[in-house]
Amino acid sequence: VNLSEVEVVRRIRRHAGKPAGLVLGIGDDCAVFRPRHGEDLVFTTDLFIEDVHFERGWPAPALGRRTLARGLSDIAAMGADPRFCLLSLALPERPGTRWLDGYFRGFLEWGVPLAGGDLSRSSKLTADIVVCGSVPKGKALRRDGARAGDAIFVSGRLGGAAAGGFQADPQPRLALGRYLRGRATACMDLSDGLSTDLHRLAEASRLAAEISAPPIAEDATPEQALHGGEDYELLFTANPDLNIRTQFRGLPLTRIGTMRKGKPGTVFLDGRPLPPLGYDHFARSVARR
Amino acid sequence: VNLSEVEVVRRIRRHAGKPAGLVLGIGDDCAVFRPRHGEDLVFTTDLFIEDVHFERGWPAPALGRRTLARGLSDIAAMGADPRFCLLSLALPERPGTRWLDGYFRGFLEWGVPLAGGDLSRSSKLTADIVVCGSVPKGKALRRDGARAGDAIFVSGRLGGAAAGGFQADPQPRLALGRYLRGRATACMDLSDGLSTDLHRLAEASRLAAEISAPPIAEDATPEQALHGGEDYELLFTANPDLNIRTQFRGLPLTRIGTMRKGKPGTVFLDGRPLPPLGYDHFARSVARR
Repeated sequence: VNLSEVEVVRRIRRHAGKPAGLVLGIGDDCAVFRPRHGEDLVFTTDLFIEDVHFERGWPAPALGRRTLARGLSDIAAMGADPRFCLLSLALPERPGTRWLDGYFRGFLEWGVPLAGGDLSRSSKLTADIVVCGSVPKGKALRRDGARAGDAIFVSGRLGGAAAGGFQADPQPRLALGRYLRGRATACMDLSDGLSTDLHRLAEASRLAAEISAPPIAEDATPEQALHGGEDYELLFTANPDLNIRTQFRGLPLTRIGTMRKGKPGTVFLDGRPLPPLGYDHFARSVARR
Repeated sequence: VNLSEVEVVRRIRRHAGKPAGLVLGIGDDCAVFRPRHGEDLVFTTDLFIEDVHFERGWPAPALGRRTLARGLSDIAAMGADPRFCLLSLALPERPGTRWLDGYFRGFLEWGVPLAGGDLSRSSKLTADIVVCGSVPKGKALRRDGARAGDAIFVSGRLGGAAAGGFQADPQPRLALGRYLRGRATACMDLSDGLSTDLHRLAEASRLAAEISAPPIAEDATPEQALHGGEDYELLFTANPDLNIRTQFRGLPLTRIGTMRKGKPGTVFLDGRPLPPLGYDHFARSVARR
């Protein structure tokens, strides 16, 4: 059964369920959200495009699940709690009920209320999401808060996505992000590779970074652990006197180095400059996504 | 000159300027926004896709301007003030500086701070925006607030976009939306044609609607005024005893009918049922966009 636009919206609305925390969800010109007193809101958007980020053959639930995963990783990196999301979806043809139901089953597995969105045609399946999260006022984990002498940590082991060709099912580190609120001085998620992302964090904090080799995922090479993207682990800094756990709910937290005064954005691996060799969407040499 | 992803982001950041009202703008995992006490936030998203909503030949400033226009019309329809926006942009190739500068000149003409977004490749130029607006708590103009006996109004004259083939430069009715706050009982913008949009407003308010012919744009037919989309005027209802102006800053406000008890969503034109014949993105017979 292929559906009209009105039928699609009706079906999405049914999937979205009762929009907790929202004054008004799907079906009006805008969604309406009532902030709590004393909270900051954080926002991220993330594109997910056929033949760029995924291929047509993916099962609908995996596509739905993956649509929201990277945005949630950004929310985790700010130490925020996801509150609601919006979805813009462009489809090559009228979707069937089976595909649509599968897609939204995957999408809503994360438990984030869907507040609204837009629907269109397009030659390639294209999804763009917005996730809104909240943190207590002034407590968002930014990239620019690291101080000279801060210890540098990563969660998990790196390079697994690069070793496997791509990351099929990212696990946003939401609980870890909450734990780091008030503990980390700076934080971001590892989406484009450690060398590139640490360069960015150091540049934002106007510092240099000195590291040793990070923990490496099974089957990954040291190069993949340094430059491979899509690991979606957290990279963060903290005062070295602060007692950061070595494990958080089974996930290793490993100190890999120290922030130093120096040329902003420079990263040294075992004393040698480490160039940012991570992902550029417009660099032709990289065909990964 | 064609730019790398880092250069593109740097350039967008320069265009976006100082993010008024934002704690943190472009460059981190998320943008951070601090709501004022006692305000509700409204959110809308809008896709803008090559060969669906526009053609490759459009000048960059017109594309940029148009990317945000429909979203702002949704903000106007809620009676809200735009506060910030996010932009997801997927481009077929590395953009040149000239194209990029032109695009963002058009985009930022609206004066809405750009807080962040996402950047990707894609075979078709695809833009998706999110606009956040604010209204005093509980004052958002919804579709579901009309009461039996309320007068029905439209701003402007209808059918102009359909008569011209498409709407090149929509004018979001932001000032009118603010004026209607506390005056209108229900409001929405006319994006898919009066017959379809009034059907939606009536359905949301669990009422029927009786109208006469709306004011017709120059060169438009009565059919285009009833069913043509993309006029981006406001459709609203108000207590008939309330003194709604006949003009607002040069824009005519015309009473076209009355909300009645009846089968929810039914619209009558001069006593005869008027079917919703507006736009469906998945209906193959309509090739307009």
